[in-house]
Amino acid sequence: MATGFSFEVLARDGDARCGRLATPHGELATPAFMAVATYGAVRGVTPAELRGLGAGMLLANTYHLHERPGEDVVARAGGLHGFSGWRGPWLTDSGGYQAFSLAERVALDEDGVTFASPLDGRRRRLTPESAIAIQEALGADVAVVLDHCVPTASAAGGAEALRPAWRDAMERSLRWAERGGRARRRADQALFGIVQGGADRELRRTSARATAGIGFDGYAHGGLGLGEAGAARAELLAVSHAELPAGAPRYLMGLGHPEDLLQAVERGVDLFDCVVPTRHGRHGVLFAREGRLAIRNARFREDPLPPEPGCDCPTCASFSRAYLRHLFVCGDLLGPRLATLHNLRFYYRLLEEARSAIAAGRFAAFRDAARAAAGAREE
Amino acid sequence: MATGFSFEVLARDGDARCGRLATPHGELATPAFMAVATYGAVRGVTPAELRGLGAGMLLANTYHLHERPGEDVVARAGGLHGFSGWRGPWLTDSGGYQAFSLAERVALDEDGVTFASPLDGRRRRLTPESAIAIQEALGADVAVVLDHCVPTASAAGGAEALRPAWRDAMERSLRWAERGGRARRRADQALFGIVQGGADRELRRTSARATAGIGFDGYAHGGLGLGEAGAARAELLAVSHAELPAGAPRYLMGLGHPEDLLQAVERGVDLFDCVVPTRHGRHGVLFAREGRLAIRNARFREDPLPPEPGCDCPTCASFSRAYLRHLFVCGDLLGPRLATLHNLRFYYRLLEEARSAIAAGRFAAFRDAARAAAGAREE
Repeated sequence: MATGFSFEVLARDGDARCGRLATPHGELATPAFMAVATYGAVRGVTPAELRGLGAGMLLANTYHLHERPGEDVVARAGGLHGFSGWRGPWLTDSGGYQAFSLAERVALDEDGVTFASPLDGRRRRLTPESAIAIQEALGADVAVVLDHCVPTASAAGGAEALRPAWRDAMERSLRWAERGGRARRRADQALFGIVQGGADRELRRTSARATAGIGFDGYAHGGLGLGEAGAARAELLAVSHAELPAGAPRYLMGLGHPEDLLQAVERGVDLFDCVVPTRHGRHGVLFAREGRLAIRNARFREDPLPPEPGCDCPTCASFSRAYLRHLFVCGDLLGPRLATLHNLRFYYRLLEEARSAIAAGRFAAFRDAARAAAGAREE
Repeated sequence: MATGFSFEVLARDGDARCGRLATPHGELATPAFMAVATYGAVRGVTPAELRGLGAGMLLANTYHLHERPGEDVVARAGGLHGFSGWRGPWLTDSGGYQAFSLAERVALDEDGVTFASPLDGRRRRLTPESAIAIQEALGADVAVVLDHCVPTASAAGGAEALRPAWRDAMERSLRWAERGGRARRRADQALFGIVQGGADRELRRTSARATAGIGFDGYAHGGLGLGEAGAARAELLAVSHAELPAGAPRYLMGLGHPEDLLQAVERGVDLFDCVVPTRHGRHGVLFAREGRLAIRNARFREDPLPPEPGCDCPTCASFSRAYLRHLFVCGDLLGPRLATLHNLRFYYRLLEEARSAIAAGRFAAFRDAARAAAGAREE
């Protein structure tokens, strides 16, 4: 692995595993959730609060930081660690997902991706090499290769119709992965390859085997959560894991809801990132064991309970559902902030509990109980 | 004074004074600044943060809380203290200022004020009696009487043209003050009268004398900061103070910028509230000894300094101007929050220093130095 990195699997329960990932900016216990700090900040939340919530590693977006403020500015401020004040580990994505999510503003060719910026219309170019150079300037502990991401489902047709595009994107991603690997200059930054292949088991298997053959410090699953059913995704993860080195960390990109995370932990995933807890929080949806709370609902108007009784987050320690509802109804910034804090703690605690359950060899029972509770009251 | 209240002047320096106001929910050192918590929250800031910044008493708005969530909801949640989590002292205004600021949606008659709600168009009525009843339900430590507020300047004409309106509003405010005083039911809530009279010294003198004659626990200056020059305002304050009991707290409503506060402290004002630090913070304007920083300015793009070197606030302890600029440029909620924290600390510290200067008999020198610094670089 890169200098200053190590990954150790500490316990297994079926395919689920818990471990420890060491980086030059600190260790994290896996499986771990990474909060999304698109522009180098988890919206509305300070680094000190994140530490208090149990954050280990944060994710920032290469494409967005390349636009604003520019990787040169971040580099001169001491990289993401110095610029943002989050001194713990950082992971940056490569911009591959933005090439997918901003697709109508993107032209993709064999050499790379051209964006017509949604900010200013300016043309911006990412190649497998420049994606690495930008991430090295940003100074994340973990970088990922540029990949070509396509949906796993489409209204236009089933797997037969999509398979040519899946194959094309998977093969291009492999060529880009090789180029990305050759472009590395920093020895103190880990680089993860990305498995693609749409919703096709054979394509995923081929991609995983070939990506492992190139050789990376860790391996990500890309292009999932874009249409496939949960059970199908679990199989795709398992097929890929059989091809990846067991001692390397595995990262499921961009997912998801608590049930998605537990399902992937069961298959041996070590790292997650997702905007769900933070975005839902900003929109007034709070996670709780008893189900999600749409906090603006009139039934919370005089509810004196904390969002989730028994939760150890700062929001639940001091504020009622009634007050949170009032803040959202009045549009006070404090509402999104308090809801975000609670949701992040919910996610961090979910994974803390998953790690304990794996270590104790009772993950299946934990997962079933968590699913039953989450299904008990959806609103 | 009301049960659980006392006010003591501890030191004087010219007309400036420092003192201690005790309330059923804690003491505060005066002169003091009250942050504005319109809906029961200082936008984006928690009670724990406010304590850390040095907050003493907060101000909430009767009219806005009457609309949302309604004083009945707040009362059942334990009043403002229980509902919001700010367990320290609260002051509520009466809605008189909203009758002015929402003037085009308001019909005022001798009995009270009718609002066409800007939220839902519904008709809402405030009278001198209902304004007290609502504030008693909200449970603030300090309530104020309903007053009739008019501008101190107008494009339409000078003092001669405005004086009839000033007189009319001042006389009505006196009749409303008497009715408000008779409407009190709670012995554990202080009630402040409000001096009106526009920018006319004789009207202010008459109002102050008559308001003192009714007898309140403290006295506010209403209708200032609405057009008059600073020097004129200082005279109006001095004229009124000569008529008010020296042992009662004096509160200048709704002002202002740091220089306004120091000028009023010099004339013997004890309490202030204003949206300036919080609103400016949300808009990216930060107060500093060296002048205000419009933090979005490109010149801060790579500025590694904290907003105000030497400041002891949590923002200056951890974040650079460059990072704050980036947060504002990207529209991250963390920007307004961090700027608000700094600006509030700037105000609290300004008044801490003013109190020390008064106690040491060097207030004039302190005021001159603060003015010179603030004028040194405006941007």
